[in-house]
Amino acid sequence: MRIIRAEEYALQRDTQQSYEKEREIVQDILARVRQFGDQQLRSFTRRFDGVDLTDFRIPEEQYEQAYKQVSQEFLTALRKAMQNIRIFHEKQKRESWQYAQPDGTILGQVIRPLRRVGVYVPGGRAAYPSSVLMNVIPAQVAGVKEIVLISPPTSEGTLKDPGVLVAIRELGISEVYRIGGAQGIAALAYGTESIRPVDKIVGPGNLYVALAKQAVFGQVAIDMIAGPTEILVIADDSADPDYIAADLLSQAEHDPLAASILVTTSECLAKAVQASVEQQLADLPRKEIAAASIETYGAIVLVDSLDEAIAMSNRIAPEHLELQIEDAPSYVPLIENAGAIFVGPYSSEPVGDYFAGPNHVLPTNGTARFSSPLNVDDFMKKSSLIQYSKEALLRDGQYIVTLAEAEGLHGHARAVGIRMKKEGVEGKL
Amino acid sequence: MRIIRAEEYALQRDTQQSYEKEREIVQDILARVRQFGDQQLRSFTRRFDGVDLTDFRIPEEQYEQAYKQVSQEFLTALRKAMQNIRIFHEKQKRESWQYAQPDGTILGQVIRPLRRVGVYVPGGRAAYPSSVLMNVIPAQVAGVKEIVLISPPTSEGTLKDPGVLVAIRELGISEVYRIGGAQGIAALAYGTESIRPVDKIVGPGNLYVALAKQAVFGQVAIDMIAGPTEILVIADDSADPDYIAADLLSQAEHDPLAASILVTTSECLAKAVQASVEQQLADLPRKEIAAASIETYGAIVLVDSLDEAIAMSNRIAPEHLELQIEDAPSYVPLIENAGAIFVGPYSSEPVGDYFAGPNHVLPTNGTARFSSPLNVDDFMKKSSLIQYSKEALLRDGQYIVTLAEAEGLHGHARAVGIRMKKEGVEGKL
Repeated sequence: MRIIRAEEYALQRDTQQSYEKEREIVQDILARVRQFGDQQLRSFTRRFDGVDLTDFRIPEEQYEQAYKQVSQEFLTALRKAMQNIRIFHEKQKRESWQYAQPDGTILGQVIRPLRRVGVYVPGGRAAYPSSVLMNVIPAQVAGVKEIVLISPPTSEGTLKDPGVLVAIRELGISEVYRIGGAQGIAALAYGTESIRPVDKIVGPGNLYVALAKQAVFGQVAIDMIAGPTEILVIADDSADPDYIAADLLSQAEHDPLAASILVTTSECLAKAVQASVEQQLADLPRKEIAAASIETYGAIVLVDSLDEAIAMSNRIAPEHLELQIEDAPSYVPLIENAGAIFVGPYSSEPVGDYFAGPNHVLPTNGTARFSSPLNVDDFMKKSSLIQYSKEALLRDGQYIVTLAEAEGLHGHARAVGIRMKKEGVEGKL
Repeated sequence: MRIIRAEEYALQRDTQQSYEKEREIVQDILARVRQFGDQQLRSFTRRFDGVDLTDFRIPEEQYEQAYKQVSQEFLTALRKAMQNIRIFHEKQKRESWQYAQPDGTILGQVIRPLRRVGVYVPGGRAAYPSSVLMNVIPAQVAGVKEIVLISPPTSEGTLKDPGVLVAIRELGISEVYRIGGAQGIAALAYGTESIRPVDKIVGPGNLYVALAKQAVFGQVAIDMIAGPTEILVIADDSADPDYIAADLLSQAEHDPLAASILVTTSECLAKAVQASVEQQLADLPRKEIAAASIETYGAIVLVDSLDEAIAMSNRIAPEHLELQIEDAPSYVPLIENAGAIFVGPYSSEPVGDYFAGPNHVLPTNGTARFSSPLNVDDFMKKSSLIQYSKEALLRDGQYIVTLAEAEGLHGHARAVGIRMKKEGVEGKL
């Protein structure tokens, strides 16, 4: 892992490929499912997943089977994680509000859950029970009545990971379909004979799923399209190099495009982390992925001061930020842009991935400048409430007429003026 | 205006044109401004706006001139509207929060304003002072430090509408540039020598502006792309047909694509509204636009019950919904999807457009199913805060290790296990 000076470092990952060909394939899949419904969905599932399904629903016995395949420790850990995640998200929930003015006018915001939400759960190696919890629980806390989950089947017609099936059942989700890919996104967006369309689609997926989500955006809402993951650790002399090395590798093992960056004021720590990364890499099961990530996008960056470190972090806007420095909490107010801030030596990044409660779906690739972790607000919508009193309209009508006329919108002015006139107030008509 | 039965009515507006050619033009403009900066911006402004600017900033004397051009009534009305909008949006603002657990762990959400936001203000006929207020005030209330505003210049190098200049000055916005179109969006997204890039771009614009915003999305955040406007009025026998006709026309005058719909249980009211629309159209200055809209997308829909009316409204998810029925407030809880709900006879839609306080930037074209009026949250972002205590990590570490191993992410498991081991707790490594 290279050690460099701040001025030599720039995080550049070209994630702006255009994917022309893949987009065309996705457009074709979407159009066909939209037109031919279930029949087409069955045909794509035969072609892409190698299984012929007469019913997309997951049969009950597959859940029973899954419970036999997971350990008691797993089930206990999953239930504790669920509880923590639920508690944290409950604190985010907002209620409708309104206020009355002395003249009787009432103004407010009606805040309601979305009605129907689709959650995509990837198949294959990226099928993570933790992702099921992180995408479903905020929707449940928001009060979404209908949560429908889809995931690509194996050639045996089940979901590959029993942990995912157990997580689904523990969450009480009953509407679950064995469909994946762009065809699954099409079914959620447009509906078919057996699947009703949703209002929003969330959850990670492969390139085709991401392109399909982009393509149906507008028809339905979608969550953000996640890029490769990042971790940035700010550390000083007080930090433990083995902890930092382990945390850097925990992100590096996700993806060769992942970026693991240490920014430190201590040359001594820099060298120790470098050595520890080397050593820990040796016996990491996913060492090829992690080594590629560390080699290409990893860096240990030397800076002169913590202020410089923080300024650099604010520019990068990392998905995960760890503060492994003395008196770490006092630096939190200086952090402008980060998906999640992990404070102090025991706040290892995986604590947030799995267990503490906050969501692990975080803004990547610098978008923490303007985006937030997945949260309860993402599953709610607001309507403005305007109940104007007669007294208020007769008093304020003149101002509204003036503004509307200044904009040349005389129909707007008249809608107010006609009421004033009928009530005997001289409105400008 | 046609009177039809519910089963005959469907709101269908094809807003899904692909605009291939316009997209190419926009891509070219964006690429050139990104590469050549101010020089290219000047060249496009010469070509599209017909003015050669050496400095994009608006000169001080143009504001002074604008104040001389607007009436005292306008200024008074604008100031009162500003105050109402500010009060309503202040109530939306949220603060960061955190909570401590008995073991010393602290969890929370850090909620911060975006740093720098760009507001686009259209030129020409759609230059509305009210839009300036509605887009800027939520950002100010959120606490955005840098608000930069751009608007296309006339061939004299000023903004066309003095009301817009006065609104800008009243709001205290000082960073204002005379640039428009896709080139203006490029400057905001990528920055030039004289204009620093922003984190988010909001505000309405023509087709080229909308396509440019879509194209830079990801580089920066954007607000929603607005479609044509809608109003849906639910009314019974108690409603005044002249009020309803005026309100329907106030939306129809915006755009031939606007949809004005009355849904009523009363055949008598239906006929009276039909007659009043005809009559009011006669002397409406924008009657050609309004008549085209009413003809194509307008409808008076007869239903058997208010329940049926509300179900229909929830399916359409209108931008503006008026409840002109007896005991209107008691129906608000039944409204699932609407941008803004106007309750009772004095809550004419223009009251919300200009004055009451809630935002007039609302979800159109059915997107109220999942989108909200522009609000203070749109100018803030959240970061999760995780400060795990040593006690908590040593207690919970086993669960995190179990979950990470179940997902095959051993680097994640080790990041936690290595801490447990150093502290003498048997972590599974």
